[in-house]
Amino acid sequence: MTDTAIDVPSGKPAAIPTPQPGDPRLARLSLNQATVKRWTLAEAVAGCQRAGIPAIGPWREPVADMGLAAAARLLRNSGLRVSSYCRAGFLTGPDRKAALDDNRRAIDEAAELGAPCLVMVVGGLPDGDRDLAGARARVVDGLAELVPYALERGVRLGLEPLHPMFCADRAVLSTLGQALDIAENFPSAAVGVVVDSYHVWWDPQVYEQIARAGERIAIYQACDWVLPIPADALLGRGMVGDGYADVGGLRRAVDAAGYTGDIEVEIFNADVWEADGDAVIATVARRHVQYVI
Amino acid sequence: MTDTAIDVPSGKPAAIPTPQPGDPRLARLSLNQATVKRWTLAEAVAGCQRAGIPAIGPWREPVADMGLAAAARLLRNSGLRVSSYCRAGFLTGPDRKAALDDNRRAIDEAAELGAPCLVMVVGGLPDGDRDLAGARARVVDGLAELVPYALERGVRLGLEPLHPMFCADRAVLSTLGQALDIAENFPSAAVGVVVDSYHVWWDPQVYEQIARAGERIAIYQACDWVLPIPADALLGRGMVGDGYADVGGLRRAVDAAGYTGDIEVEIFNADVWEADGDAVIATVARRHVQYVI
Repeated sequence: MTDTAIDVPSGKPAAIPTPQPGDPRLARLSLNQATVKRWTLAEAVAGCQRAGIPAIGPWREPVADMGLAAAARLLRNSGLRVSSYCRAGFLTGPDRKAALDDNRRAIDEAAELGAPCLVMVVGGLPDGDRDLAGARARVVDGLAELVPYALERGVRLGLEPLHPMFCADRAVLSTLGQALDIAENFPSAAVGVVVDSYHVWWDPQVYEQIARAGERIAIYQACDWVLPIPADALLGRGMVGDGYADVGGLRRAVDAAGYTGDIEVEIFNADVWEADGDAVIATVARRHVQYVI
Repeated sequence: MTDTAIDVPSGKPAAIPTPQPGDPRLARLSLNQATVKRWTLAEAVAGCQRAGIPAIGPWREPVADMGLAAAARLLRNSGLRVSSYCRAGFLTGPDRKAALDDNRRAIDEAAELGAPCLVMVVGGLPDGDRDLAGARARVVDGLAELVPYALERGVRLGLEPLHPMFCADRAVLSTLGQALDIAENFPSAAVGVVVDSYHVWWDPQVYEQIARAGERIAIYQACDWVLPIPADALLGRGMVGDGYADVGGLRRAVDAAGYTGDIEVEIFNADVWEADGDAVIATVARRHVQYVI
């Protein structure tokens, strides 16, 4: 990979040289596929290989586009680790059976892909519903149904607390403490938690909850909080280093809690998605060295 | 006031008749002046009087526009209660002395206006700063400076936790529990907390923290969480009943904790601001009866 020396999406000159394949500082870096959303799974795998990124977190849609068996074969032969699989959940809606069936399919896919963890975005409040406690109870109830299946398949469910900005429409799970309160009802092998710096950085309890989480930490995701929040609030995630989240401090905290796994960069951002994928990955790698490890 | 029978800003027919002046169901309702932002203080006072709203929460800018002494006279002669005074705070920036001086002026103004509570929005992270713990420490430090002055003037500082969406730019105080952890360092007469349904509705700990708050609750503000979040995230607040927050449930919780004060409706919303002030107040009154009391 050539060093573009230009950061994405800021367009500013890179602060440090791009680490090259084989650089030990990249050893724990993983590219969540959503960061290079326009790429197919094959393109994302090839991009990681070119850049020396040793792990990838695939998403269900591009896996389906390729076909599950072919995707599993590609990943097995790629030399890349699979850090997580995104995503399932959405357990709060009215059609419980359809949701559980879809989650079981996602568990099967994760098992086939060799993903250690299936990321769970639990779902928001149905329209017109103000019963948050009820929605949260449905999450616990749905998980109880899925846990035996997940254990059988050897897939860990990773409960992801989302920023409270998404409580109404995406996840009634808003803090790491709340995720742990739920996870602790189940075996650690079956239910862990996802720590995503973008979602948890603001939480006054986050450091004590990370310490509490310990071996429950299924994956650490890195992403920055940037302003302004865009028209589509889902796409407001920034390249690490461009915003306010202490992504490195949170990484040190998860490590201190015993986490030794991948550091997966997941950025939903229209400007990042418009950019050249190799330039995105090069920026991700530089920022990882500069701000995270 | 005539019943417009049209809700603001939805434009839909009103679900119930507008409660008329003297209706006991309006006894605890207060209009935060920001809800009718285009009105002067004199216009807002007159609007409340026409609608039979017995209390008002003025803002500093319109008070300054009128002149403090004239505003105090207007409010004293209006027959309205002053429920709170908005707002001071912003204690996290680099110029500590200027911030403290401005807060002392706001305390003086609140005392002159007879406001029982000065709402404190504590401030966000300075640009380029990722040290949340440091910013939070500056809030505690600033409060310690202000508390003797507030006690002397008989004004209670109301710490307002803002939705975590505003942690970077407006308030590093994000949860009621965190606000209480800070408030409890000071006498209850000097430092209370603001419970605003818009900011706290998502919090999995909010009901236990309201119970804990007890007499620390300085003011309950009512506002709904609506989607989508607009381009200016500050203006995404909805008319009570239009969104996802259980504004009535939270009102019952603050009452159960011992709160008997005003229920102040504060809505930052461009569409509400564009509408006729009397129509806004009529909608506020109807929604108060329908969803809050």
